[in-house]
Amino acid sequence: MKILIINGPNLNLLGTREPEIYGNISMENYLNTLISDFDQQQIDYFQSNIEGEIINRIQQDDFDALVINPGAYTHYSYAISDCLKNSSKPKIEVHISNIYKREEFRQKSVTATHTDAVLSGFGLNGYRLAIISLLNN
Amino acid sequence: MKILIINGPNLNLLGTREPEIYGNISMENYLNTLISDFDQQQIDYFQSNIEGEIINRIQQDDFDALVINPGAYTHYSYAISDCLKNSSKPKIEVHISNIYKREEFRQKSVTATHTDAVLSGFGLNGYRLAIISLLNN
Amino acid sequence: MKILIINGPNLNLLGTREPEIYGNISMENYLNTLISDFDQQQIDYFQSNIEGEIINRIQQDDFDALVINPGAYTHYSYAISDCLKNSSKPKIEVHISNIYKREEFRQKSVTATHTDAVLSGFGLNGYRLAIISLLNN
Amino acid sequence: MKILIINGPNLNLLGTREPEIYGNISMENYLNTLISDFDQQQIDYFQSNIEGEIINRIQQDDFDALVINPGAYTHYSYAISDCLKNSSKPKIEVHISNIYKREEFRQKSVTATHTDAVLSGFGLNGYRLAIISLLNN
Amino acid sequence: MKILIINGPNLNLLGTREPEIYGNISMENYLNTLISDFDQQQIDYFQSNIEGEIINRIQQDDFDALVINPGAYTHYSYAISDCLKNSSKPKIEVHISNIYKREEFRQKSVTATHTDAVLSGFGLNGYRLAIISLLNN
Amino acid sequence: MKILIINGPNLNLLGTREPEIYGNISMENYLNTLISDFDQQQIDYFQSNIEGEIINRIQQDDFDALVINPGAYTHYSYAISDCLKNSSKPKIEVHISNIYKREEFRQKSVTATHTDAVLSGFGLNGYRLAIISLLNN
Amino acid sequence: MKILIINGPNLNLLGTREPEIYGNISMENYLNTLISDFDQQQIDYFQSNIEGEIINRIQQDDFDALVINPGAYTHYSYAISDCLKNSSKPKIEVHISNIYKREEFRQKSVTATHTDAVLSGFGLNGYRLAIISLLNN
Amino acid sequence: MKILIINGPNLNLLGTREPEIYGNISMENYLNTLISDFDQQQIDYFQSNIEGEIINRIQQDDFDALVINPGAYTHYSYAISDCLKNSSKPKIEVHISNIYKREEFRQKSVTATHTDAVLSGFGLNGYRLAIISLLNN
Amino acid sequence: MKILIINGPNLNLLGTREPEIYGNISMENYLNTLISDFDQQQIDYFQSNIEGEIINRIQQDDFDALVINPGAYTHYSYAISDCLKNSSKPKIEVHISNIYKREEFRQKSVTATHTDAVLSGFGLNGYRLAIISLLNN
Amino acid sequence: MKILIINGPNLNLLGTREPEIYGNISMENYLNTLISDFDQQQIDYFQSNIEGEIINRIQQDDFDALVINPGAYTHYSYAISDCLKNSSKPKIEVHISNIYKREEFRQKSVTATHTDAVLSGFGLNGYRLAIISLLNN
Amino acid sequence: MKILIINGPNLNLLGTREPEIYGNISMENYLNTLISDFDQQQIDYFQSNIEGEIINRIQQDDFDALVINPGAYTHYSYAISDCLKNSSKPKIEVHISNIYKREEFRQKSVTATHTDAVLSGFGLNGYRLAIISLLNN
Amino acid sequence: MKILIINGPNLNLLGTREPEIYGNISMENYLNTLISDFDQQQIDYFQSNIEGEIINRIQQDDFDALVINPGAYTHYSYAISDCLKNSSKPKIEVHISNIYKREEFRQKSVTATHTDAVLSGFGLNGYRLAIISLLNN
Repeated sequence: MKILIINGPNLNLLGTREPEIYGNISMENYLNTLISDFDQQQIDYFQSNIEGEIINRIQQDDFDALVINPGAYTHYSYAISDCLKNSSKPKIEVHISNIYKREEFRQKSVTATHTDAVLSGFGLNGYRLAIISLLNN
Repeated sequence: MKILIINGPNLNLLGTREPEIYGNISMENYLNTLISDFDQQQIDYFQSNIEGEIINRIQQDDFDALVINPGAYTHYSYAISDCLKNSSKPKIEVHISNIYKREEFRQKSVTATHTDAVLSGFGLNGYRLAIISLLNN
Repeated sequence: MKILIINGPNLNLLGTREPEIYGNISMENYLNTLISDFDQQQIDYFQSNIEGEIINRIQQDDFDALVINPGAYTHYSYAISDCLKNSSKPKIEVHISNIYKREEFRQKSVTATHTDAVLSGFGLNGYRLAIISLLNN
Repeated sequence: MKILIINGPNLNLLGTREPEIYGNISMENYLNTLISDFDQQQIDYFQSNIEGEIINRIQQDDFDALVINPGAYTHYSYAISDCLKNSSKPKIEVHISNIYKREEFRQKSVTATHTDAVLSGFGLNGYRLAIISLLNN
Repeated sequence: MKILIINGPNLNLLGTREPEIYGNISMENYLNTLISDFDQQQIDYFQSNIEGEIINRIQQDDFDALVINPGAYTHYSYAISDCLKNSSKPKIEVHISNIYKREEFRQKSVTATHTDAVLSGFGLNGYRLAIISLLNN
Repeated sequence: MKILIINGPNLNLLGTREPEIYGNISMENYLNTLISDFDQQQIDYFQSNIEGEIINRIQQDDFDALVINPGAYTHYSYAISDCLKNSSKPKIEVHISNIYKREEFRQKSVTATHTDAVLSGFGLNGYRLAIISLLNN
Repeated sequence: MKILIINGPNLNLLGTREPEIYGNISMENYLNTLISDFDQQQIDYFQSNIEGEIINRIQQDDFDALVINPGAYTHYSYAISDCLKNSSKPKIEVHISNIYKREEFRQKSVTATHTDAVLSGFGLNGYRLAIISLLNN
Repeated sequence: MKILIINGPNLNLLGTREPEIYGNISMENYLNTLISDFDQQQIDYFQSNIEGEIINRIQQDDFDALVINPGAYTHYSYAISDCLKNSSKPKIEVHISNIYKREEFRQKSVTATHTDAVLSGFGLNGYRLAIISLLNN
Repeated sequence: MKILIINGPNLNLLGTREPEIYGNISMENYLNTLISDFDQQQIDYFQSNIEGEIINRIQQDDFDALVINPGAYTHYSYAISDCLKNSSKPKIEVHISNIYKREEFRQKSVTATHTDAVLSGFGLNGYRLAIISLLNN
Repeated sequence: MKILIINGPNLNLLGTREPEIYGNISMENYLNTLISDFDQQQIDYFQSNIEGEIINRIQQDDFDALVINPGAYTHYSYAISDCLKNSSKPKIEVHISNIYKREEFRQKSVTATHTDAVLSGFGLNGYRLAIISLLNN
Repeated sequence: MKILIINGPNLNLLGTREPEIYGNISMENYLNTLISDFDQQQIDYFQSNIEGEIINRIQQDDFDALVINPGAYTHYSYAISDCLKNSSKPKIEVHISNIYKREEFRQKSVTATHTDAVLSGFGLNGYRLAIISLLNN
Repeated sequence: MKILIINGPNLNLLGTREPEIYGNISMENYLNTLISDFDQQQIDYFQSNIEGEIINRIQQDDFDALVINPGAYTHYSYAISDCLKNSSKPKIEVHISNIYKREEFRQKSVTATHTDAVLSGFGLNGYRLAIISLLNN
């Protein structure tokens, strides 16, 4: 199974950005763990701060399943939402922190309307749970 | 580890209730699978249609971690929310369907403010993922 | 035909509660009239002030048709609403007073979304009209 | 007893208009049934697509009781609402479909504030129930 | 000076309609007083319950000044509002009762945006004050 | 093809009404141009300031396609909206000015929900474009 | 009859303040005209920019009738509103400009709830009309 | 005088629940102090986490005055509110913390509409003040 | 202990102002009773209709505790609210009537955010209860 | 005449994306038809999923008229809206589907405020109608 | 150049009021620094807690430019806003703290609508920057 | 000190874009003046119309202080807002025009929540004031 993980804006700073919220492990390190843990699968990774590039990447459609953390775009990018709607692959939205404990605007997700499921508040572990659920389907 | 699963109103009907949304496996059957899969742990189960009885059960505080699907109470029970706030144990909120794909009122959770994490849209498999995440902490 | 009448919170006080709004006939007396008027049918009655007990009663599913006055729960009990959605029997919601003449919050019904029809403002006579309509179907 | 039935805009199309919502019996046919069923009463009928003509008709005040389905005007005609307020006769508002199951705007009635009671979701049978309730008063 | 007075829906019932709010003098009687008091002017009168007929009347444009009480249309008739905008004559809106003491919806006027001035709460005397102000300009 | 053009309130004043917004050509003149330009088609025209008469005209159902500019009724006439929903003919809504450049209330159309397409801001030319599109279907 | 005219904040600048809205006659000059026109009455005048001083002045209760233009306090001073409610004298609220043609916030009056009537858009002439209406009662 | 104190959900945890907000004295200990301080009166106590049981208790009507802290039900239980409306006894609502310093949802009380008075922010001492005020009436 | 009581706008009229809401005892008489009842304490009193003078008085900071009834300023004076926030003394807000039974705007308090506690609906007795609570701290 | 057509996010998928809404003709094929139909004009085409690149393209200002379908950016891109405001060329906004028949958020256009006209619901034919209108100006 | 600095309510407490937000330098000390730094200019200072006195001071119009920090009045004083609108002098609004980091109500300024520019979050240094900008014009 | 100035979308058009709002000096010319005026500092400049590139630039973190005018992104880019939150450098938001005098949507800033201070309405001079304030810290 080919799984694409997409991270949205500012998630390249994981490990240094607000560690009290997001923890202090970098995404690169975490990815390595994921890749070795799920060594029967192909795990691809893409990060961009640019809304349209995330759309471009999803449109390549070179994956069997998608794990996406759209970052702040979660809350207003109807463009990414439309793009997710177009894809017929399994899609899971991940948020590292529990968005229900944060600002009001973070409690609305315009992208989750077009993913199959949502995980929020599991830390980096959320990516792992998403992959587990994809493999079990 | 002693894990308590609490299901709120109408979730006793799983398997017969709106199967196109909730699937056609009963909670009892699913629980048996969970119990045998995680046979190193003690998994307790409680279901009630009565808001205050769910509070009573949480207040017994006889568990190491809580997996809770408050059903419709998710969206308006500040009483359950206050009760969750009082508990210092790990708590995960599970929704079988993806609440972001459903009615507007289901997209607000007053209980998730006081759980550690939220899972939505994984079907019954959400309970399993919640337990996996608790065991990994 | 087996018809279940369910009354929600404070409707046990009919006849004494705010008689200028609800009249001064008790539900017990009124029920006796109903039972003798429709003596070809079985009319069961259940009243509870507890939201979840109303759900429990509906889930017993031992009736051919339901006449329900959810009282104040009409306006916020998504739990009862979900329960009504699960039942495939004919269901009619009754309000004794005309809810459009009262407080703003009483003009929203979250339960009527999942009943077949609604009657409001006919006094106790509303229960009779509901039964007539059920028999005519 | 002289009962006036008023139907608002587009209700002249009953039987052909959206039959999945409103059924396929024409109002004319239904009226004939009503008239023969209640042959001790005088049943008058008036339909107009014009808001002000409905007001004109109500102001004639040549009836003992009013059964009114204001159609779409239900939701915004404060002019008809004021007119109903002026009339001291018994008045019942009827909706063929259950307005709580339809668009948000249909769940607000500005006219029901000035009728005695409201019936919604009984199909054409709602007119009959309204007459029964008027005769029982 | 040729002054047209237009009254909207239900204002033909003045003197009988809600006398505690609108008083018990009929518009006909009041008009006669106005006509004799301002006998140097031509005072025309038009009343209709039909929104579009009020527009038709204003479009005739056969007056030097307009005194209009749009009744309930005040609060939602953008069609009358557009029509008033088209007229270049002096225009005064009159309300018999003080709309600030009544229901919330009566405190919004979509027509006053396109009249020169508004009078509210002077009883029938408001029409007289409107004419006085027109003569003083 | 028989095309019916319906214009709503105040559109009989085109050419004189707010010429800076609506231009200074009268609808009559413009219609003549349309009729000669599309001389293979039958173009009928109806204008009324009365909401219900517009409904009456649509219900006659004597056309193959409808081009409608409901004027101010666009923004609140659920009665016309319901009527359009009942018609199975192709229907196009036209606004002479760009409603997105005008008052907030003009940016909501309750009628466009039940037309096939909407044109706004093309001046009188909008009617021509609507006809072209109907002929191309 | 002893009539008190109260003007609120910034109305001491009449004649110089935004003359395109309020005209270029000073209140002092206008008052002189009023006083000579109504020489059978005693007309007192009070202006203050201070909310509480306006309340102090009304509480002196040394007048038979009140004409008040609360200026910007119209839109938020519940303190002046409460004070007007306490006074049992006839009270008329005057606005020089038509508040329905101005900013949204000016279309709400918290003080008019406790005056008998409201005049808006008559320029300084509004004070005169208010006095005429008081004398006619 | 027979005074009933009712505490709503989670208030059985006083002394352990969020002590920084609610203090660390248990309700049982506090009650003992109250009972000895007001030894001329009978003080009854009832606590429940179940909304409908609180209604059941109030309906017993075996008290001369009621002191009620509905906990989280304060903010949404129209059922308890209706029940309080039915009781003709003196009723005082108590909140331990100052609800104006807390979350937005806690600043709305649907129950206080039907109590005589409200106390908020006095800690457990609020119960004592409520009793003092009842004895002084 | 030196206790300052501050009353806001229109509270100088207690005893004459709306006696059905506020009772018919004047504040002066009530103060005398308070002073003799608490003769071990110094009770100072200040009343002003002027928002800023209330702030001036609080800023003098010559008291050990504050009992304040900001009257209508309760609902919009962020200036008084900021001033209360600056004071480190115990502060209690008192309302004579139960604000939850009155107009919507009275149910919001911008000042209570910065007092320690709030009392509402105890009549003049509220001041006494406030003092009792201050002495018990 | 040099006409630039700009398509926003996901519109590169026309023909495959949600064909039941957008049809199954690709934009490339449709463009070829347009180019041959209007062979007297130069028709340029630009598509991007990236908001800022659309702005970059408009700022090149190398066209005589603009036809733009901003896709999902229509509903929130004030940046594109500002850019359109800066351009003095004729500009027409096109939507393939009738946005009034779709989700609530699609009924608001922040870009149409700064285009001359809007077309919605004509399918791909909307581009053709836009060009026709530009040529007729 | 004669520059008037006006400070609104509670700003007389600078240096002692919430020092973690406003710093611990008093306005008097800061003013002395300003006066010596800009010794070529005349710098006047006025502070009042009374809304109307701030209006009185502005109306004196004895300055070439105004630097104003309306304190809490920023958020609701339409009276001060109207007064600023009347003044034709350069006007700059200053806030010591960054109002975008504070309570929701502080993010609305009704006074800034009628000043030329706004500075927020520069501490006391904001006054200096305002003066620099005035001198550079 | 190394100061980075970032300008968001459409600000590359300064001097030509809406000169009545933004003036007619180009950013390039203005920058040259800034650079020569502050020749002891290093002033870097970056402009992009692409939201994500602005984030990329901020993440380079190669500056001592940031002056940012996010243009239209100010009002909805939570992605840039999150990025600013991550940076620990001094940050000042600049708007050339006074955003309080413009459209409603421009009065909300989601980015200013995470800058230290905001300047609005000083024209291009705002950049200079921002730098002055940074040097004074």
